[in-house]
Amino acid sequence: MIIHGYFRSSSAYRLRIALNLKGLKANLASVHLRRGEQMSKEYRAINPQGLVPSLKVDGSTFTQSLAIIEYLDETRPDPPLLPADPSARAKVRAFAQIIACDIHPLQNLRVLSKLRKDFGATQDAVDDWCRQWIGDGLAACEALLEAQPAFDFTFGDRPSLADICLLPQLFSADRFGVDLSPFTRLRGIRRQCDQLSAFTDAHPSRQPDREE
Amino acid sequence: MIIHGYFRSSSAYRLRIALNLKGLKANLASVHLRRGEQMSKEYRAINPQGLVPSLKVDGSTFTQSLAIIEYLDETRPDPPLLPADPSARAKVRAFAQIIACDIHPLQNLRVLSKLRKDFGATQDAVDDWCRQWIGDGLAACEALLEAQPAFDFTFGDRPSLADICLLPQLFSADRFGVDLSPFTRLRGIRRQCDQLSAFTDAHPSRQPDREE
Repeated sequence: MIIHGYFRSSSAYRLRIALNLKGLKANLASVHLRRGEQMSKEYRAINPQGLVPSLKVDGSTFTQSLAIIEYLDETRPDPPLLPADPSARAKVRAFAQIIACDIHPLQNLRVLSKLRKDFGATQDAVDDWCRQWIGDGLAACEALLEAQPAFDFTFGDRPSLADICLLPQLFSADRFGVDLSPFTRLRGIRRQCDQLSAFTDAHPSRQPDREE
Repeated sequence: MIIHGYFRSSSAYRLRIALNLKGLKANLASVHLRRGEQMSKEYRAINPQGLVPSLKVDGSTFTQSLAIIEYLDETRPDPPLLPADPSARAKVRAFAQIIACDIHPLQNLRVLSKLRKDFGATQDAVDDWCRQWIGDGLAACEALLEAQPAFDFTFGDRPSLADICLLPQLFSADRFGVDLSPFTRLRGIRRQCDQLSAFTDAHPSRQPDREE
């Protein structure tokens, strides 16, 4: 199993957590995003989108972190990363998609580069842009959790796809200086996840391709 | 069953296609996005994110179009919107997520409003922004399809979640003036989908809340 990833990529971070929770080992093929290696002909033959992560497993290459994680969950179901009940699965997937669709893509490196290039955005303006989408999205996540009883993790007593998406997003919220103090539930979940080596071992600061 | 949607929303359009393919009827509760109705206290009690669509069904309210469609597919499996094989499912989901995560959110109304407000973006600059993300994303979709045999639909001889995401994205590509001529496979799939009333009946121009 080979993971094409990058230490700071939020979506590669998700996949690392999922692999760890499943007890799966993948060799890292690091794709240096800041040097633009994702746009090389070689990498685009692996992933035409030029994004990370990609996962080579079972004789195929898979892309898009949520699709990869669901594939692993379907083919290696223990421990499950989605609940069994369809209604509960839909809640977990919706929470994950708030992050994966409506927060993370807006703070992607390629998007921030275009803001700088086309609109002359300063670093302050870029940080403000990121803080707005992260803050709005996390507020919606918090509101969804407030509408239900509190669990140790987002949707129950064990980690799911929702927690897998949440922790990398909170890491990135910290990088951009988002005020997390209003998000009591989310911070409580982070404390629980931080007790598990599946989460802490996946942290960007602990990856072999990390940089300061 | 109640769908909270808006005729021009790409993600509401996806859900309309899925409902039609399943032969399900939902009553429309239109949320006028250009008038900001999605940010009302009433609507945010339904969907804290203030986005459409939301679907009330089976005593619950579901959000995020892909999560809703998977819920419908799990609870009303005929006809299936995902293939049975896990590897094929992952390919369909990845294709859908290229659109739902990496194209569509970047051209969302709230994002374009912020480009105008914070960076003084002109209409030309906004259109160029949209064309870039749509063009890049569709090029990746086309490349994925070129790497496999041609089918009538994206991943086989019947429509799947991938086609459900593709058609609204092509509609929006046309709105922003994206040149679709390089995308032979995608255009061929659109011709097939345009033969099916499940797709044509879901078109924005045929919705009761449509405007010129």
